Amino acid sequence: MILGNDPILLTPGPLTTSLATRQAMLRDWGSWDTAFNTMTASICADVVDVVQGAGSHVCVPLQGSGTFSVEAALGTLVPRTGKVLVPVNGAYCQRIVRILGYLGRACTTIDVPEDRFPAPQQVEDALLRDPSITHVAQVHCETGTGILNPLQEIAQVAARHGKGLIIDAMSSFGAIAIDVRTTPFDALIAASGKCLEGVPGMGVVVIRKAALEGAQGNSHSLAMDLYDQHAYMQKTGQWRFTPPTHVVAALRAAIDQFIAEGGQPARGARYAANCRTLIEGMEQLGFKVFLDRKLQAPIIVTFHAPADPNYAFADFYQRVRAKGYILYPGKLTQLETFRVGCIGAIDPNEMRNVVSAVARTLAEMGIRQVAPLAQAA
Amino acid sequence: MILGNDPILLTPGPLTTSLATRQAMLRDWGSWDTAFNTMTASICADVVDVVQGAGSHVCVPLQGSGTFSVEAALGTLVPRTGKVLVPVNGAYCQRIVRILGYLGRACTTIDVPEDRFPAPQQVEDALLRDPSITHVAQVHCETGTGILNPLQEIAQVAARHGKGLIIDAMSSFGAIAIDVRTTPFDALIAASGKCLEGVPGMGVVVIRKAALEGAQGNSHSLAMDLYDQHAYMQKTGQWRFTPPTHVVAALRAAIDQFIAEGGQPARGARYAANCRTLIEGMEQLGFKVFLDRKLQAPIIVTFHAPADPNYAFADFYQRVRAKGYILYPGKLTQLETFRVGCIGAIDPNEMRNVVSAVARTLAEMGIRQVAPLAQAA
Repeated sequence: MILGNDPILLTPGPLTTSLATRQAMLRDWGSWDTAFNTMTASICADVVDVVQGAGSHVCVPLQGSGTFSVEAALGTLVPRTGKVLVPVNGAYCQRIVRILGYLGRACTTIDVPEDRFPAPQQVEDALLRDPSITHVAQVHCETGTGILNPLQEIAQVAARHGKGLIIDAMSSFGAIAIDVRTTPFDALIAASGKCLEGVPGMGVVVIRKAALEGAQGNSHSLAMDLYDQHAYMQKTGQWRFTPPTHVVAALRAAIDQFIAEGGQPARGARYAANCRTLIEGMEQLGFKVFLDRKLQAPIIVTFHAPADPNYAFADFYQRVRAKGYILYPGKLTQLETFRVGCIGAIDPNEMRNVVSAVARTLAEMGIRQVAPLAQAA
Repeated sequence: MILGNDPILLTPGPLTTSLATRQAMLRDWGSWDTAFNTMTASICADVVDVVQGAGSHVCVPLQGSGTFSVEAALGTLVPRTGKVLVPVNGAYCQRIVRILGYLGRACTTIDVPEDRFPAPQQVEDALLRDPSITHVAQVHCETGTGILNPLQEIAQVAARHGKGLIIDAMSSFGAIAIDVRTTPFDALIAASGKCLEGVPGMGVVVIRKAALEGAQGNSHSLAMDLYDQHAYMQKTGQWRFTPPTHVVAALRAAIDQFIAEGGQPARGARYAANCRTLIEGMEQLGFKVFLDRKLQAPIIVTFHAPADPNYAFADFYQRVRAKGYILYPGKLTQLETFRVGCIGAIDPNEMRNVVSAVARTLAEMGIRQVAPLAQAA
């Protein structure tokens, strides 16, 4: 560690950002001023371009964490008489179900084990079985495990049945290709502090224009009414309520760096290299990845906890942290795991360093049985 | 202006912050990490201390702008069968009425002209007339005009009648004294980017413990459920959903400076000096203040626009901006006005400078009739 530096965040956001991104927050912006409004508009245009949505879709930014934007998209786009199909294979899918409960929107789920993805055929069957379903809500990369769901195929099923698709692309947007021309959707939700490598504090919702136009009066919330937010922004260029000006400025700087790096293909390639380097290094130490490699998104990796009696996550976490890296706890109910993120302003060298830090930690803690018992047998 | 520097924000937030506050955003924080959780807890404790609420009240932070926290407080604390009395003398009071409409909570108003405040007796009469009222929602400093409403008297009326008081103290908290022992309330809402001089991006809601304990299941929204936010934070020390980590760090730095300055009495005295200096200087140029001096809060001042045919706000704004100061448009429907904020990391010298910049702008634009016509007659 460089003394006085902060540890590297190997978490699914907030992440380690570049100095240029953080330095963009050294300025104060007036939320009513043209200079700031221009910045917001340019962010929205760039976000729509990431999914090739110019012409068909608009971007509506929203204050708060990504979950605020997920709730806002559901509340704005699903009419009160609507019904949402949610394929569930992890914590963030479950959160969508919980939100729908708060909103009083009818909901039905397809329940899939956390190490599998929902088959597009299951979605098709569910839609055929229940014609009252109006929308499908699909998490792209389920951060609970790190699994990549088959978004394009599910989008095509939804489109074929004329159902609106709402995508939680929180931890994939900007890193994994999504093209609205082959993955049609009504809404896609992303956030400032994920693969665009800004700081947390705002979400962005890319919405199909025609879907938004019909959404007046749906929302359960003034603050989260994306129809109203968009209408006001169209009229005035401004956010309805005080924007997180410094977060917006950091996101502008982060997107500039995203474009300079080569956009989504380059960002995705760097994360894939980070992920490959991490997994190879950890496997050499004896760790086992929770997911099948074919299902693993290059965003965050769930590892089985070592079966060794000397292992305890809190101790392991603190010792790795003292070496400069912040890991993430597991989010599975049945198995003891931990997670390591591959995203942020870091490269494969950093992943080699964290593997080295983990190796030294295992030695310090006297952990010999690194693999979980079942797989070591 | 110092070349390359940003203009000073004379707006009701975002405001001009200190370099130390902005520099606190040069670090990345893990939202799961103890260091960050400690920071959140310390902010909450300090916020409760500002109103002497330790023991009786807790602070629940929330992502988003102040309006998100206002909606969250109303949604969490007013049961679905509740009814809210809203004394209305400006735009932010009207916003509360609009939120209650979204939430489907019954509401009744006391309508008062924008240059007057609601008399505590009017509140008392309304409560006597309609026993189905469960809560009173009162804006403290109504930023639409800059008027200071008689909060303490209204709080005592509400308490005497056993009604819950919800205070929008967005633009007064930290600058104008509020003591829960003499101004009893169920909830008080403030935001990071106002008189605490942090950056925008989060709100804080100070809630009476007993009121929060009875609030489970009220909220219309998962993201804005302050009961759930508080319960999770009590259990884990963490925010439920990704916090705006850099905004939190900036608020910690800003509160450190607030305490070092001498807390609310010192902060309020500096703003009062700013306000006095501004009004005296502007009056010397011929400007007229919209409000009676006795009603004016030392937060933001509404001035009548000059009656001169050469005056146009857009041009005036741009010319003053070019001299280093960002003003704020008026928010009155009947009269042409503009507003100048007195808050932020600035002192009376800065107010003298803005008066000088306005004087030079009047000369450039050839404006001779600075007072509004009615008052010049």
